[in-house]
Amino acid sequence: MIEVKKALEITAASSSITVVKKVPIEKALGCVLAETIYAPIAMPPFRQSAMDGFAFIHSERHQFDVVGILQAGDHSDIKLKENQAIRIFTGAYVPKNADTVVMQEDVMVNGDSILIAKKPDQFANVRNKGEQINEEDVVFEANTLITPAAIGFLACLGITEVSIYKKPKVAILVTGNELVERGKKLSEGKIYESNSVMLQAALQTIGIKKTKVYTVKDNLKATQKALKTILQKNDVVLISGGISVGDYDFVKEALLANGVEELFYKINQKPGKPMFFGSKKDTLVFALPGNPASSLTNFYIYVYPAIRNRMGFSDTHLPKIVRKLNTDIENKTGKTLFLKALYDETHVTILEGQASSMLNSFAIANGLVIIDHDVQKMNKEDQVTVLPIG
Amino acid sequence: MIEVKKALEITAASSSITVVKKVPIEKALGCVLAETIYAPIAMPPFRQSAMDGFAFIHSERHQFDVVGILQAGDHSDIKLKENQAIRIFTGAYVPKNADTVVMQEDVMVNGDSILIAKKPDQFANVRNKGEQINEEDVVFEANTLITPAAIGFLACLGITEVSIYKKPKVAILVTGNELVERGKKLSEGKIYESNSVMLQAALQTIGIKKTKVYTVKDNLKATQKALKTILQKNDVVLISGGISVGDYDFVKEALLANGVEELFYKINQKPGKPMFFGSKKDTLVFALPGNPASSLTNFYIYVYPAIRNRMGFSDTHLPKIVRKLNTDIENKTGKTLFLKALYDETHVTILEGQASSMLNSFAIANGLVIIDHDVQKMNKEDQVTVLPIG
Repeated sequence: MIEVKKALEITAASSSITVVKKVPIEKALGCVLAETIYAPIAMPPFRQSAMDGFAFIHSERHQFDVVGILQAGDHSDIKLKENQAIRIFTGAYVPKNADTVVMQEDVMVNGDSILIAKKPDQFANVRNKGEQINEEDVVFEANTLITPAAIGFLACLGITEVSIYKKPKVAILVTGNELVERGKKLSEGKIYESNSVMLQAALQTIGIKKTKVYTVKDNLKATQKALKTILQKNDVVLISGGISVGDYDFVKEALLANGVEELFYKINQKPGKPMFFGSKKDTLVFALPGNPASSLTNFYIYVYPAIRNRMGFSDTHLPKIVRKLNTDIENKTGKTLFLKALYDETHVTILEGQASSMLNSFAIANGLVIIDHDVQKMNKEDQVTVLPIG
Repeated sequence: MIEVKKALEITAASSSITVVKKVPIEKALGCVLAETIYAPIAMPPFRQSAMDGFAFIHSERHQFDVVGILQAGDHSDIKLKENQAIRIFTGAYVPKNADTVVMQEDVMVNGDSILIAKKPDQFANVRNKGEQINEEDVVFEANTLITPAAIGFLACLGITEVSIYKKPKVAILVTGNELVERGKKLSEGKIYESNSVMLQAALQTIGIKKTKVYTVKDNLKATQKALKTILQKNDVVLISGGISVGDYDFVKEALLANGVEELFYKINQKPGKPMFFGSKKDTLVFALPGNPASSLTNFYIYVYPAIRNRMGFSDTHLPKIVRKLNTDIENKTGKTLFLKALYDETHVTILEGQASSMLNSFAIANGLVIIDHDVQKMNKEDQVTVLPIG
C-alpha cells in the first residue's frame, strides 16, 4: 500500500508519453498544440478600412469628388488624386495611395461630392497589412491549448490542419457477476451495472467522446481473454471492480498473466483504496474499485490527470482551490480522505453519505475536499484544499 | 442603442422558453432535469455485505462452522443457525437472519470452521436495504444538473431515460462577399472566413455539438431566402456580419422581411456594438458583428446565457470572479468595455490588441474584464469583475 502522493508521482511518470496527430482545426478544440504554428499569410492580408466611410489622401482639403465604391471583398487598382475620395466599407481594400478613412457619420454627401465635417488624423481608420500578425510570424507556440478563439485565429489565417497531442483511446472493462444491464429485471442479490456509463460521462468531460465498454463475468479465463484484446487496442484501460482481495477478484491475476507490469496496488486513502495501476508498453491500466463513489473518486484523482498528461496538458490535475471549513473534521483513519463537498465563494460544507458505495452525495457535490493521511483533525474555519468537479 | 444591462435583460426575458425531451441517461450529461426523479427500487436493493468476510448471527460465540459461500450476485434462502457462518464477499446478499459481517482479516480459518479474533459490533459491515435511497424516494429534484455522478446514480437505480430541457438547435449564417473558404486561394481584398468554425467551437463548449453553417453573399434577396429556411428549422440563429450601417449590410432588412421582431439593435459597448437581437415565435436571432473578436465577445455575453437559459440552467451567465488590476485603465469611450485579459489567483492583466478585428489576444486570454460604461478610470490594484472563458 502506498500514499496518495507516491501514487500520483507514479501515474504522472507513466502517463507522459504523447502521440502527435494532424487534425482539421474544427476537431482540435480542447487539444494541445504539438507544433509551433507560423502565419502563412499576414493578417490583415492587405490594408483594410476599419469603418464604413470614405478613403482619401490626407491633406488640408475638406471637399472631395467621390470616384468609386469599394465593398468588402472588392479590389481596385485606382490611384486617387488629391481631390478624390472613394466610398469604402468596413473590411474593404484601401486603394494604394489613400492613407486615411473618414467615417460616414462625419461626412456630408452632396451628389457625387463630399464635405468632411470632422477630419480625422492622417492614417485614421486604416488597418495596416500585418497589423495583427505578419507572414512567417509565430501564431501559437507549441503546447498552446486550442480554444474557440484560437480556432478562429487559425481559420482567419487559412490554416486547415494542426498537429496536436492525440487523445488516448480508452476502453472500459466491467467485471462482476452481480451486475445486470439497465432495462432488465433485477433478481435478488443483483444490482444494476452503473460504473461504465458514469465513467463514460466522466471521460466525456475531458474530451474523450467515445469509449467502448466490455463486460466480463468474474472468472479468470474470461477476464484474461477479454483483457488480451482490450490491451492491444487501447491506450488507456479502465477496469471496474474485481480488484479487492476477495477470492473472486480475478482482475489482478488476469492483468499480470497478460504481461501488465504492476506499478502499484492499493493506496492509503478513503474511499478508493483497492486500486491497481500498471502498464504494458504504452498502455496504461487503471483497475478501479467496483464501488461507484470510489471508482469516480479515483477517476478524478488518477485517471483524469493521466489522460490530460497524454493530451499534452501542463496543468494535468483538477485545479485546486482553498476554502474555509464549515464544520470540524476528524480523521482517525490514518488515510487520505477525499470527501464529497459543496463549496461556495468562501466556505465548503462536507456532505452526508461519504460511504464508498454511495453516489447520491457525489451527484450533488461540486468538489472533493482533501484531508491528508497525517492530519487527524481540522477545525471549523480552517483552510482546506478543494478540487472542483463538474 | 441600449446599455449592456438592458440588452441582457431583454435576451434573458426572450430566452426563457424551454422544451422538454426524454433522452437516454447516457445522452443527458450536462443537461438539466425537467422532472423530479423517484427511485424505482431501493438502493441497495437488498442487504449487502460491505466487506469480504463471513456473515453470522451476532452473539457471545467466536467459533463458527462455515456452511456455504455467497459471491456478489448470488442469492440464498439459507437460514443460518447460531453456530454457523457463511463466507461472503463485498456486495453479496446477506442471508435473512444474519446480522453481522466480520472482515476476513479478523478471522482465523481452520478447514470448515472459523475463529473470529476480533469480533465486530452487531450489524457491522452490513449495508441495509435502502441505506442510500428507498423505493419511491426523490432521487433528484427537477432542475438538477446531470453530472457523471448523477448519471451513475440514475444507472444504479436502473433508470434508462430522463426528461431534460432540450438543447436548442442552432444554425450559423455567414454573410460577406469578402469571405473565402479555408484551403482556397486568397485574392487581393478577400479574407478567410473564420467566424463559423469559431462559433461552432464556442457552441461545443456548452454542449451544442452540431451546428449547420449556411453561407450567403451580401445581397438582400439571397439573404432573405436563406433566412426563411433557417428560421423555420432552428431554435437559435447566429448570423455573422452584415449588421452594421453599411449600404451592403442587408441582414437587418432581410430579418424584418422574414417577420423577425427586432428586440434591440446596437449596444453601447466596445467591442460588439453592431448587434441585432430579435425573435420569431420561439426562434431567437443574434446577428453578431462580423469582426471576429466582437463576434466571440457577444457570443459569450449574450448567446451563451441565452442558450443556457433554454437548457434550463439557473446560472446562465459565465461565472463572475473578482481580481485586482495590474495596471490603470482609462475608459473615455462612455461605452461598456469587454477587455481580453489573463487572470491568476489574485490579479488580472489586460492584454495588448483589443481591436475588434483581432483574435490573437482572445486566443491567449483566459478571461474578459468588464468596465462599465459609466466608469472612466480604474486604478492599479482596484478590484474588477472578470468573466473566465474557456
